[in-house]
Amino acid sequence: MSDLAGKTADNLRKIRENTPLIHNITNFVVMNITANVLLACGASPVMAHAVNEVEEMVTFAGALVLNIGTLTDEWVDAMLLAGRRATELGRPIVLDPVGAGATRLRTGAAKRILAETRVSVVRGNASEILSLSDGISGGKGVDASHSVNEAAKVASDLARSLRTTLAITGEVDLVTDGERVIRIYGGHSLMPLVTGTGCSATALVGAFLAVDPDPVSAAATALAFFAAAGKLAGEKAAGPGTFMMLLLDALYNLAPQEVEDGCHFETN
Amino acid sequence: MSDLAGKTADNLRKIRENTPLIHNITNFVVMNITANVLLACGASPVMAHAVNEVEEMVTFAGALVLNIGTLTDEWVDAMLLAGRRATELGRPIVLDPVGAGATRLRTGAAKRILAETRVSVVRGNASEILSLSDGISGGKGVDASHSVNEAAKVASDLARSLRTTLAITGEVDLVTDGERVIRIYGGHSLMPLVTGTGCSATALVGAFLAVDPDPVSAAATALAFFAAAGKLAGEKAAGPGTFMMLLLDALYNLAPQEVEDGCHFETN
Amino acid sequence: MSDLAGKTADNLRKIRENTPLIHNITNFVVMNITANVLLACGASPVMAHAVNEVEEMVTFAGALVLNIGTLTDEWVDAMLLAGRRATELGRPIVLDPVGAGATRLRTGAAKRILAETRVSVVRGNASEILSLSDGISGGKGVDASHSVNEAAKVASDLARSLRTTLAITGEVDLVTDGERVIRIYGGHSLMPLVTGTGCSATALVGAFLAVDPDPVSAAATALAFFAAAGKLAGEKAAGPGTFMMLLLDALYNLAPQEVEDGCHFETN
Repeated sequence: MSDLAGKTADNLRKIRENTPLIHNITNFVVMNITANVLLACGASPVMAHAVNEVEEMVTFAGALVLNIGTLTDEWVDAMLLAGRRATELGRPIVLDPVGAGATRLRTGAAKRILAETRVSVVRGNASEILSLSDGISGGKGVDASHSVNEAAKVASDLARSLRTTLAITGEVDLVTDGERVIRIYGGHSLMPLVTGTGCSATALVGAFLAVDPDPVSAAATALAFFAAAGKLAGEKAAGPGTFMMLLLDALYNLAPQEVEDGCHFETN
Repeated sequence: MSDLAGKTADNLRKIRENTPLIHNITNFVVMNITANVLLACGASPVMAHAVNEVEEMVTFAGALVLNIGTLTDEWVDAMLLAGRRATELGRPIVLDPVGAGATRLRTGAAKRILAETRVSVVRGNASEILSLSDGISGGKGVDASHSVNEAAKVASDLARSLRTTLAITGEVDLVTDGERVIRIYGGHSLMPLVTGTGCSATALVGAFLAVDPDPVSAAATALAFFAAAGKLAGEKAAGPGTFMMLLLDALYNLAPQEVEDGCHFETN
Repeated sequence: MSDLAGKTADNLRKIRENTPLIHNITNFVVMNITANVLLACGASPVMAHAVNEVEEMVTFAGALVLNIGTLTDEWVDAMLLAGRRATELGRPIVLDPVGAGATRLRTGAAKRILAETRVSVVRGNASEILSLSDGISGGKGVDASHSVNEAAKVASDLARSLRTTLAITGEVDLVTDGERVIRIYGGHSLMPLVTGTGCSATALVGAFLAVDPDPVSAAATALAFFAAAGKLAGEKAAGPGTFMMLLLDALYNLAPQEVEDGCHFETN
């Protein structure tokens, strides 16, 4: 769809011009790659998680990224404090429910964040997203055990029920707010073999939310940009190690027009 | 020894087929590379350290990896909780006593984990392993100050005394349960110049333990696979930065038959 | 200036010969790259932050690196304990005031460390360094909002007032103790697009302080070495991902004589 492809290029241009500050409260495993992905695309990352700092830090931010991997109770407190302040300030929040469905701590934290703050977008794999529904039991852990197609059946209902936009990533990505449904094609099979690509996609959604007030188009265009970069990197990579480096190069080098030409959306 | 080389290939095949979930409670420095090493070899990593989560998470895991770098008291508590639960469930545990011998916190934590849980394999450098013996004082820190040969003299006794399998890595790796002694050759001089290669070797031992119930062969074959990948990466690398990426590529690309052909064991 | 260029080469030789242990209490985002940068240049990194461990660990160290990114109160306590012990032992301390000026937690922590320990060098961007002055309000966050030239006007006064050496990095780096002023040229525009390059520069200053008792020449030569490696890496890199790897390769491969030939200082 040409509208979304053009919007992807426009959003990327805005990020590179405005370098929005993205406040991340994220897990230890992916902090480094998340910061590097944000820098490569033109945004300005900050990581801060202290309960006596996050409310102050989020006031400077164009978006807040909450990621529940490697969680403890104190981090949940920090996420709620930052999230409530962001909600008051009208700053967009993106939630990554890493491992929701695997443990009560994670499922509970994701649900509390959804209940107590205004989350613009939830980005996760099908299994994690489905665990946010009270009627559906979760998977074994961080890996997706439901296909995107299975998820699509309930995603739209779930988005309406949760009053948020869901961005479900997998071989094909799906974005829905319960009314609009957008599928994004692209990416590469090496992507899930590098830790933090999903979490980095979430952070990219944050950067796109900082320049695009529509959660559906922000999420869809962020994922399309990431998929285009992943495809380019995957074509040159000899394995997951070189892929990780080439992905950062691609995010940095891709011109808005190339991104526009390389996007593949399907709407219905 | 052809048996172990064949076993290395078999174990690798099993990991790639079964993608065992490996639960890591590990240090902040190496979480990212550890997850990437596990993904590259075909396993599924999860990192979780909250005291109110680890007992639940470990029930999903094929093996538990405990690594005491960047420790605090709360992390020791989490390791003991997860370790005791894994012991009850009969799940294999691998311990990496990073920096044991350097500070009381680390030496004490390693000894407590050994006393209160059933550790299948301890993977460390000679200095760290020797510090676990009450009769021998430790080194200055994380770096090995004893050679593998010095360590071999006491490793066998120590393994019997600790009732576990020791995997002592260095220029030549040594695995012993007090009866069998296996030396593994290979690797590359750039390996110790990338942080987290030792810790990643420990995590690989965890992945191999998830598919191989014999701690001695699991540890030896994991280290042989890592050494083969390290050798391959080192031959192409221009320094530690490119080595790190090529190591991940090699772990991903090496076919079981290539691994079998590239293994060098010595038993006595 | 030939004296400093020769000193840069000499300091690098000493680090590679003596492999000084550098104790880092640093932020989660950059722990991995910081350790890799120290290993690549020939030093031996250790990361330890537990309040019941840091005083013991710092006794083994040639220098202590305190970095206040991703701070909590408990980490401030650990930094003060380690810093006071290092001060007693006469071990050099380098402080990286990441994000000082952005939040009260960070600005307050940086000021407390400066007041309660003897900091040899503070390494930061202009905005962070200026926030340490009581008379000047800080910037929006981690990114520099003051130019190096603006900072130079007040850096010398501030160094005298804080009784320390300031190392202000940017397009051109500046080192001053209030009497001597040294500018260092080099580096590459990709450097700020990789997270942790600034923090790694701070850790390198720590390694150079471990072999050079003069804070001004230690800081200036460390930054010159880093700039030379960054220039070399940048010439070959295709983006920030490949740059990160090539930077580690360059730090490892650069011969002291090449570094001496590649340094560009200006003193006044």
